[in-house]
Amino acid sequence: MKLPLGYRYASLYAGIRKVGKDDLALILSDTPASAAGVFTQNRVQASPVKLSRAHLKESKGIARGILINAGNANCATRTGDRVALACAKTVAKSHRCPVSEMLIASTGVIGVELDSKLIVDAIPKLNEGLSADRFEDVSRAIMTTDTRPKTATAEFSLGKGVVHIAGMTKGAGMIMPMMATTLGFVMTDAAIPVSALRSILREANEESYNRISVDGDTSTNDTVLLLANGASGNKLSSKDYDVFTRALSHLMQDLAQQIARDGEGAKKLVTIHVEGAKNRDDAGRIARAIANSPLVKTAIAGSDPNWGRIICAAGNAGVPFEPEQVDIFMQGMTVCRKGLAAPFSEAELKSKLDEKDVAIRLVIRGDGEGQARFWTCDFTEGYIHINASYRT
Amino acid sequence: MKLPLGYRYASLYAGIRKVGKDDLALILSDTPASAAGVFTQNRVQASPVKLSRAHLKESKGIARGILINAGNANCATRTGDRVALACAKTVAKSHRCPVSEMLIASTGVIGVELDSKLIVDAIPKLNEGLSADRFEDVSRAIMTTDTRPKTATAEFSLGKGVVHIAGMTKGAGMIMPMMATTLGFVMTDAAIPVSALRSILREANEESYNRISVDGDTSTNDTVLLLANGASGNKLSSKDYDVFTRALSHLMQDLAQQIARDGEGAKKLVTIHVEGAKNRDDAGRIARAIANSPLVKTAIAGSDPNWGRIICAAGNAGVPFEPEQVDIFMQGMTVCRKGLAAPFSEAELKSKLDEKDVAIRLVIRGDGEGQARFWTCDFTEGYIHINASYRT
Repeated sequence: MKLPLGYRYASLYAGIRKVGKDDLALILSDTPASAAGVFTQNRVQASPVKLSRAHLKESKGIARGILINAGNANCATRTGDRVALACAKTVAKSHRCPVSEMLIASTGVIGVELDSKLIVDAIPKLNEGLSADRFEDVSRAIMTTDTRPKTATAEFSLGKGVVHIAGMTKGAGMIMPMMATTLGFVMTDAAIPVSALRSILREANEESYNRISVDGDTSTNDTVLLLANGASGNKLSSKDYDVFTRALSHLMQDLAQQIARDGEGAKKLVTIHVEGAKNRDDAGRIARAIANSPLVKTAIAGSDPNWGRIICAAGNAGVPFEPEQVDIFMQGMTVCRKGLAAPFSEAELKSKLDEKDVAIRLVIRGDGEGQARFWTCDFTEGYIHINASYRT
Repeated sequence: MKLPLGYRYASLYAGIRKVGKDDLALILSDTPASAAGVFTQNRVQASPVKLSRAHLKESKGIARGILINAGNANCATRTGDRVALACAKTVAKSHRCPVSEMLIASTGVIGVELDSKLIVDAIPKLNEGLSADRFEDVSRAIMTTDTRPKTATAEFSLGKGVVHIAGMTKGAGMIMPMMATTLGFVMTDAAIPVSALRSILREANEESYNRISVDGDTSTNDTVLLLANGASGNKLSSKDYDVFTRALSHLMQDLAQQIARDGEGAKKLVTIHVEGAKNRDDAGRIARAIANSPLVKTAIAGSDPNWGRIICAAGNAGVPFEPEQVDIFMQGMTVCRKGLAAPFSEAELKSKLDEKDVAIRLVIRGDGEGQARFWTCDFTEGYIHINASYRT
């Protein structure tokens, strides 16, 4: 599948992380692009998050590029703000654009000073490496505890021509401070005005990145950025926005699911589908409570059809519902009907739960229209192994 | 230390759980006692929770006894309400008290029918076994995945004489559906009017059971009951309530800490002390967010002084604060000052973190008066082992 037109990519090893794998990357649009971003809601925010947010405001949603480093989150450090600005300035200058058109993102350990010289000195070489076909290299350079790069592309006819979208992401926990920060970068060659782009990203994000969880922690560095440079010559009209939003939402769900599947120590992707709630928000909160329950997730790891833990977790969502109305399905089999145990073959379901994809469906009651999907992973000893000794 | 006067205890094996360990217990006051209870906030509530709540209301806070079973939570079953009532009726009748004066509590698997016959048939023999010195036996009968019984006693002079308090609890996760439900039963021989007893229990509970977490899940069966039968002849006046509340709070904190220390798979008790917040509620929410962070708890398991995870978790509490004002101490050593890394000996702190008791202290800022303590445990592979195959 073709990548969006008008973007170039580069990565190299700048010496930020200990192992000699690429840790600095640049995504550059040939022309100024409409840009929108969503950022962590954590009260503690890393310097690159604060700077990118300020730049998007200052530039009124115009961006030329995104500079990304792995190995250091540039968060809770004395020099963080200065380092972030120095890096953005150097790249912006080298491409003759206002500094506010350069966005930045970081992932890695927090509380450790990031040496801006490592990045600033590497930028000329980084620029030399820019190429339209190094998309994949960048998706590798932003990895931390990820076991594989995560990308997705889409191509479809819209308006007067073809539109391309390509996205990459990282995170082995959507939500892990320090090392498995979620970053997502999505590029399209459609032309979309900034104000529309913002609401499109917000909507697509609501159904994708806001619907995954590995461990219930929200990082200080979470950042998802969307660029639309119009290089396809295809200028979307407002009646095209719905189609574009659906395509973007689908692509971002793909990326988000890749994160959940690659959750630290995970062996299974778990899809939680809640239906029949009062509204989407209620459905999402119930799904999130189930996705964040260590008891549900350890049961899935053990292929244990323990639906009692599922209804118990749902009961902790802070959403009113009648337990006597709830039906629960696992791998398509009914395990609970109207709040009570349904008859099912334990052996058959256990073997179905050994699969790599596990589906849990809750129908809160027949007549509610709110529904939501949520993705998470099972919870294994591997998570403990990785996290008991990450820093040391 | 002497137990409160005027209570008798009994336990036996009624065949509810598979292994032949006592699973049915009775705590009986010789005379009607003032009684107060706090119960799970989960939307899904077990039949014994619903019944005990109703009985406390109906009896206007008078109780003769508490019937407890382990091995089955009597939750999400067709016959749950009927079973709970039948058991309460049988015990009440045998002691010639109104059924509303009998409270009940259950812990164990949910979604599995509980055979009331097992309990009803065992009650005559249970009554025969009643004795003032079988307190310890009852504390063992209510265990599920607990590795040890959990009791605490207090004795102090108050008003015109001596007051005794004795409490027992269970839970290897304060908050685990199905098997590690928290139950707590506290008896005193002081005479305290019901209305005062209710507010005393609420206050003591706020500082004890509401301040522990193993895994962030709230059970369907959580129940803490307090009985005051006045058998000491010591009738407290309202000016004694503060002293009594402090003693009770201390005893309940002791019980709650025993739960956290015995958390599934846990090797360490972690005390989180948050100071300098705007008020107690804010401090409690920050402490809870830290206690529920799998990343903080895995770091503690690995003796990793990873304070970045602590400040990140605090940032997710939904409480506004300035990260630049925060000081963090681990085992008394400063690891973060004003939101930035403080110099400390990594080797020295690592070895201190190998101890069985770990203290984390956050000072949000110098001038706030809100503070809270919270207890949790470290998070090890043992938790996953226990929970990936609990039911099967």
